[in-house]
Amino acid sequence: MANSRFEYVKSFEQPDVLLPNTWIVVRIDGRGFHKLSDHYSFAKPNDRAALDLMNAAAVEVMKDLPDLCIAYGVSDEYSFVFHPSCQLFERRNGKLVTTIVSTFTAHYIYKWNQYFPGKPLQPPYLPSFDGRAVIYPNSQILRDYMSWRQVDCHINNLYNTTFWTMVLQGGMSNTDAEQELKGTVSADKNEILFSRFGINYNNELEIYKKGSVLYRQQYELEEPKSTKSADEEPSVAQTQQSRSQQDKIRKLRRKAQVVVDHVDIIKDEFWEKRPWILSGKPGKLPAA
Amino acid sequence: MANSRFEYVKSFEQPDVLLPNTWIVVRIDGRGFHKLSDHYSFAKPNDRAALDLMNAAAVEVMKDLPDLCIAYGVSDEYSFVFHPSCQLFERRNGKLVTTIVSTFTAHYIYKWNQYFPGKPLQPPYLPSFDGRAVIYPNSQILRDYMSWRQVDCHINNLYNTTFWTMVLQGGMSNTDAEQELKGTVSADKNEILFSRFGINYNNELEIYKKGSVLYRQQYELEEPKSTKSADEEPSVAQTQQSRSQQDKIRKLRRKAQVVVDHVDIIKDEFWEKRPWILSGKPGKLPAA
Amino acid sequence: MANSRFEYVKSFEQPDVLLPNTWIVVRIDGRGFHKLSDHYSFAKPNDRAALDLMNAAAVEVMKDLPDLCIAYGVSDEYSFVFHPSCQLFERRNGKLVTTIVSTFTAHYIYKWNQYFPGKPLQPPYLPSFDGRAVIYPNSQILRDYMSWRQVDCHINNLYNTTFWTMVLQGGMSNTDAEQELKGTVSADKNEILFSRFGINYNNELEIYKKGSVLYRQQYELEEPKSTKSADEEPSVAQTQQSRSQQDKIRKLRRKAQVVVDHVDIIKDEFWEKRPWILSGKPGKLPAA
Amino acid sequence: MANSRFEYVKSFEQPDVLLPNTWIVVRIDGRGFHKLSDHYSFAKPNDRAALDLMNAAAVEVMKDLPDLCIAYGVSDEYSFVFHPSCQLFERRNGKLVTTIVSTFTAHYIYKWNQYFPGKPLQPPYLPSFDGRAVIYPNSQILRDYMSWRQVDCHINNLYNTTFWTMVLQGGMSNTDAEQELKGTVSADKNEILFSRFGINYNNELEIYKKGSVLYRQQYELEEPKSTKSADEEPSVAQTQQSRSQQDKIRKLRRKAQVVVDHVDIIKDEFWEKRPWILSGKPGKLPAA
Repeated sequence: MANSRFEYVKSFEQPDVLLPNTWIVVRIDGRGFHKLSDHYSFAKPNDRAALDLMNAAAVEVMKDLPDLCIAYGVSDEYSFVFHPSCQLFERRNGKLVTTIVSTFTAHYIYKWNQYFPGKPLQPPYLPSFDGRAVIYPNSQILRDYMSWRQVDCHINNLYNTTFWTMVLQGGMSNTDAEQELKGTVSADKNEILFSRFGINYNNELEIYKKGSVLYRQQYELEEPKSTKSADEEPSVAQTQQSRSQQDKIRKLRRKAQVVVDHVDIIKDEFWEKRPWILSGKPGKLPAA
Repeated sequence: MANSRFEYVKSFEQPDVLLPNTWIVVRIDGRGFHKLSDHYSFAKPNDRAALDLMNAAAVEVMKDLPDLCIAYGVSDEYSFVFHPSCQLFERRNGKLVTTIVSTFTAHYIYKWNQYFPGKPLQPPYLPSFDGRAVIYPNSQILRDYMSWRQVDCHINNLYNTTFWTMVLQGGMSNTDAEQELKGTVSADKNEILFSRFGINYNNELEIYKKGSVLYRQQYELEEPKSTKSADEEPSVAQTQQSRSQQDKIRKLRRKAQVVVDHVDIIKDEFWEKRPWILSGKPGKLPAA
Repeated sequence: MANSRFEYVKSFEQPDVLLPNTWIVVRIDGRGFHKLSDHYSFAKPNDRAALDLMNAAAVEVMKDLPDLCIAYGVSDEYSFVFHPSCQLFERRNGKLVTTIVSTFTAHYIYKWNQYFPGKPLQPPYLPSFDGRAVIYPNSQILRDYMSWRQVDCHINNLYNTTFWTMVLQGGMSNTDAEQELKGTVSADKNEILFSRFGINYNNELEIYKKGSVLYRQQYELEEPKSTKSADEEPSVAQTQQSRSQQDKIRKLRRKAQVVVDHVDIIKDEFWEKRPWILSGKPGKLPAA
Repeated sequence: MANSRFEYVKSFEQPDVLLPNTWIVVRIDGRGFHKLSDHYSFAKPNDRAALDLMNAAAVEVMKDLPDLCIAYGVSDEYSFVFHPSCQLFERRNGKLVTTIVSTFTAHYIYKWNQYFPGKPLQPPYLPSFDGRAVIYPNSQILRDYMSWRQVDCHINNLYNTTFWTMVLQGGMSNTDAEQELKGTVSADKNEILFSRFGINYNNELEIYKKGSVLYRQQYELEEPKSTKSADEEPSVAQTQQSRSQQDKIRKLRRKAQVVVDHVDIIKDEFWEKRPWILSGKPGKLPAA
């Protein structure tokens, strides 16, 4: 099926392969979700159904792409992480990002009615997402990325919780609340919540305070003990796995259950308990 | 809302701005549509509802992004074209591609039931699309790109029409039909269709033979006559439009009706009749 | 000579091919030439020997790389231009830039003694250059690039001529001269030169006022007259020349004499008189 | 000194900042050194003066750019390595590569007469070099890169030594020697050298067998003992050093003597003895 005269235009496509042996983070963001959340009357400061829908769509992305080893979501954004050994789509930036954005969008739209039964989608108010890929050279920096998003979640949620409590329960105008919160630190906001409204921020739901972390539930494989600790960099040998090894690992991952959790991912504990996430080696599946 | 300790991770994001003053083509492709078309029993060689759904989703993308000046679709792929003067998202590759991919996916999923009323979507068989951006330095090469896709449409459709006629009407096995078609040229396939099945390929539907071209219906603005002909390169002055000019043009484009056509876009005629497509200057809207 | 265990490190090299069918400009700049010109006591505001040495090195680069069609130099910088049809080093950015930078440096160092007979090079004061490649999608923008450099030459030379005349002939301190020139326009500087020092700026040497433009001296080939004018974009067919055609053109170019000129390259005249520069088609060599 | 009408052309320059926190290797290669070594009658298989000149030029590059922490040279190529914490030229690819290529070329040309007193340079046979930058995400892969080059040195040198001994001492034609060596392994070549010519390859000069490694001679700083071992990845804090810290480190490095060594860099010993190379922390200068 040659097509010669015009086919030269293919030569204008430029390669976009991501550097080997680096962590790949694909972060997607809702487009115009401020307007959207108004139109569909999302609850303030957090709409539980909206977050559950985000998580449900993200779980489907994790299932669809077994190469993903962890994901983290907050508000209308989600970060999906590929291991340095990932060879999916030859690590082409465009393919990885658009596949995740499209798969996420498809499930989000498809599941909408299930999570918002009384609020059918109304074009042109159709949710959509944009996305980007960023690479990180080692696990420490990847963890700093994850920490960055979770700290952001905390800061935004504390602010939003205080702001909307002042407005909705305190009867303040948006402007007045904004004005009063200007320059306050965390302790001030906690104090406002507690002294004026009797709200202990610590008792807020973990999904609001911590965001949502998705990973595959696995136990460690019983392997000959390695001298390497779990958070060391993946060895090059590992990242140069044969295709058959990769296929085997992909199958194991596909079987593992995707867990939705709302826990601290800044401290070491989360990562030490689940060494397979950073090591990229699938663990044993839990006994039935 | 400073977030200092971890915020350094933002420095790993790399810029991806596309070269100024070049045509931007975003092409999206259905992921695994072969399997999908089997699962949902798409008609062979062409499923009219599937093509209509592709076109309907593409029309919504054109409406949502007035910067787009033309789009061309065939089978499960669609090419969307931004003018060299486009400044949308500061011409960031990732933003442009993911926005189009996500918007298209959202409308495709949302409208599915309307085009396939008896065939509800069944996860995990949820349609999704990947995409890429390619830039072209001048109108001639852009037109060669468009021609490339339309020639591809023709070649594939003639092959598929002949193949599936041999199989479905001629009772041949897939392997036998494939074998017989190996090495044939267009004339051979036309002859097979005509002599064995009485089918004149020229009478096939234009949407199958030509694909679908989307553009905004406009008349030329009555401007002081320019000495420049329509298909000359856009002047730099034009591509350095002020933001207010761009906003004005965007509004005019938003009002123009998006037309779905099935015509030859290889010859000059199509482009000469619609000079606003290549010039990037919105024409007068048609009188009511 | 396989080298397998470590050879995987080659996979980290990333492609850097420049977009096809675009003009490539490689601009090099002297590193730390301010300090260098002090050390070797370059004359102010212009050192003729230093400019002649720059030009001599640039001529050698033009001779060494017949793919270059024009070059422009001012002060310690030089811009080298490859035609859109250029396929040298498969248009790899790094190869093109480093080859030019290195070749230029080699000739500059080698010829130093010839242009500065009484001033031998003294490490660590060894001249060196950095460089970058920029691509431009059409001839109009390439010409705007060339105009940008020549306007810059004019502005800087008028300033420097006035400043150094005020200091060297007027006995002002650097600070006082700088202070007085702050906010002045061209007319003011011309006036200072003329009224205080009797200098008519128009009578300054062209090499100082216009910089240096290098091109190959050729006459047009007697070809069947084309309907295309010289400054139209190169046709795609042309840019898809066969390797043998390219070799033939390269040979013709190698024979053409490289001219060093000091003329206006902003107006059309320069380009219209030498159509082979923008067309990329080598002309007839001048009769002996 | 505004220059507005044409200044828009600057917007076509594309950023080329290398990913933070990665090792940067700039490798330069002689252009057409095969022809050059014929023209200047370089000794076969190795020309000591030519290698010494390469090393001398590389030492100057190391002195000129204190950010460099190690370099490795073999034949007409040299690899220069920047630490992940390097911020030189904001890590711009083009600046780093062209600066090294130009500085190296300048010193190579300048010192030629000193190393080849009886063979003055003869244009157009002027040596020049091209170059490229490659980034590596961690120390292990950087070391694999260095090992790759040293293994290459060994393989090529054993081959060349055997080949040229067969030709020069054995009186064989180039073709016959090439033919006989086809398919041989290292042991075969050692055997040919020993049994036919009485040459023990192990006794060849280390500079030929191992290539040349350049680093700064330093002792470890007496610091509060860190729990981190030397070959761990540089901490992020370290790579986010303040500008003043960087300046201080640069000064210490500038004082350290650059050593030219011909030793094994594949095994751990070399790196363990000189922990400051991978750690990026300058050690104490040796006592006078």
